[in-house]
Amino acid sequence: MNLANRPRIGVMGPSECAAEILDLARETGRIIARRGAILVCGGGCGVMDAAAEGAKSEGGLTIGILPGASAAEANPHIDLPIVTDMGNARNVINVLTSQAVIAIAGGPGTLSEIALALKCRVPVVALRSWSIVAPGGGVPEGYIAVSSPEEAVDTALGLAR
Amino acid sequence: MNLANRPRIGVMGPSECAAEILDLARETGRIIARRGAILVCGGGCGVMDAAAEGAKSEGGLTIGILPGASAAEANPHIDLPIVTDMGNARNVINVLTSQAVIAIAGGPGTLSEIALALKCRVPVVALRSWSIVAPGGGVPEGYIAVSSPEEAVDTALGLAR
Amino acid sequence: MNLANRPRIGVMGPSECAAEILDLARETGRIIARRGAILVCGGGCGVMDAAAEGAKSEGGLTIGILPGASAAEANPHIDLPIVTDMGNARNVINVLTSQAVIAIAGGPGTLSEIALALKCRVPVVALRSWSIVAPGGGVPEGYIAVSSPEEAVDTALGLAR
Amino acid sequence: MNLANRPRIGVMGPSECAAEILDLARETGRIIARRGAILVCGGGCGVMDAAAEGAKSEGGLTIGILPGASAAEANPHIDLPIVTDMGNARNVINVLTSQAVIAIAGGPGTLSEIALALKCRVPVVALRSWSIVAPGGGVPEGYIAVSSPEEAVDTALGLAR
Repeated sequence: MNLANRPRIGVMGPSECAAEILDLARETGRIIARRGAILVCGGGCGVMDAAAEGAKSEGGLTIGILPGASAAEANPHIDLPIVTDMGNARNVINVLTSQAVIAIAGGPGTLSEIALALKCRVPVVALRSWSIVAPGGGVPEGYIAVSSPEEAVDTALGLAR
Repeated sequence: MNLANRPRIGVMGPSECAAEILDLARETGRIIARRGAILVCGGGCGVMDAAAEGAKSEGGLTIGILPGASAAEANPHIDLPIVTDMGNARNVINVLTSQAVIAIAGGPGTLSEIALALKCRVPVVALRSWSIVAPGGGVPEGYIAVSSPEEAVDTALGLAR
Repeated sequence: MNLANRPRIGVMGPSECAAEILDLARETGRIIARRGAILVCGGGCGVMDAAAEGAKSEGGLTIGILPGASAAEANPHIDLPIVTDMGNARNVINVLTSQAVIAIAGGPGTLSEIALALKCRVPVVALRSWSIVAPGGGVPEGYIAVSSPEEAVDTALGLAR
Repeated sequence: MNLANRPRIGVMGPSECAAEILDLARETGRIIARRGAILVCGGGCGVMDAAAEGAKSEGGLTIGILPGASAAEANPHIDLPIVTDMGNARNVINVLTSQAVIAIAGGPGTLSEIALALKCRVPVVALRSWSIVAPGGGVPEGYIAVSSPEEAVDTALGLAR
């Protein structure tokens, strides 16, 4: 296996969401795997589970960075559980481990990952996710809205640091 | 000293900003101290320094939760440096240690603190800070815009969990 | 309040232990307060509770760096709960926030704090605590065994960085 | 790739050490790979580099959980860098991600990993590493000294939780 040269793309999103969001996440995971990239996610339910399921259905590799203390909490599509026992602080690890991040929909947890990625200069691609306007006005540099899973993955791969 | 019953109010904001933002932060710190509350911040420059300076000028108590590995990096107005060596992961500790958070202006780091606070159900009061709209539309519950330091502190104290 | 110049002394130890160990912890906390130092601990039960009780009985100040997500889990003698939600990773913060550490008895958690302190060059004073011998032989520099609470506190204050 | 069922074995040790210790680490990595297990380490120099080199020489898979903020700091034998920016707090993640840990020689950082593993009930196999005696006397349960890389790996695999 030669994995070190494959890009690592994060997919961030809510643990509970509508079926159409899960479909977007699954398709995003599929395309990540088809492009030969590694999927990084939080290892949980919802968008994290669907994206990992999609990636595995195409023979991809999935990393789940877990907030709790047990590998057993990873969703069934995670190849490599990273066990942190650090709660939301693991969101920092999610974004730093990714060379670009795709945010799909999401609640405040996903917003924290968007913000942490921007802080750490990791590009963020947003698919039906948060609208954010900085205090001085304007969308922050490095936050790019897209309209489909394919556009999300290809934009993320193009920007991957 | 009986400190355990005093509310802990976080002030989050950028390490570099315009003089008028520093004035808002200093005034916010002063009012926090006058109300008998404890100031929690990241212990650094800019808004963190100005807020702590304001709090100390009124005889208040200041806690600085530092991202680096040395207490020497705290600004000179910090009474109690908490040394984490955890980089941006200390933002989680900032918000969990606060019973309510006041965000003043700010870049992506401050946005991460707003989001982490909302995730952890810590109320957030925004003073000239980020505008955020959730994927489904609407401002998230618990995120309240105000227009002055006095309104910020009194709203934060009213909402403190 | 002028707290920034007071030394911060950590007391680390088990959450469950024999009554005589609790007595040592309580006496250690009392002496820390009498010397005008601030007590840093993990905020929990056992040695942490007894040391904080001792410090408060002499009018001292106590900081509890908590592993969980709620300030409510602090023992009743903690003035300032720092809420991390980081499990055992908070042990790093315990030692970095202390200018010297006193380890009293203890299980593997206390041993991790001893080791992390030595790694971070924070002096460690051991009172009926772990015996450790480095792979090449010899006790590591900075790890000093003492035989009473008074000797523990005075040694810690003398070594505080 | 079906990686989820492969055991994850941690190898912990110093970033600087004698050549004979590096030889032990390299041989340990080789045997981990031959047994079909995944190597988890801190991703740095010394024992971490040698163990990963050994694992890769036998076609194994290596995970490096890095203390800093950049994947570029991983040693050249790491397939999957996990980027934490959490300094020594990442030692917790090293041990929780491993199903058993092998400690080879080591300074205080390695001792912290031994202790954190014992705290989290992850078995620890020690190869020329620290001698530790608990306050009440006795070696802690779950800490097992061995005398060769082969014995280390086979003991770790037998105990892996």
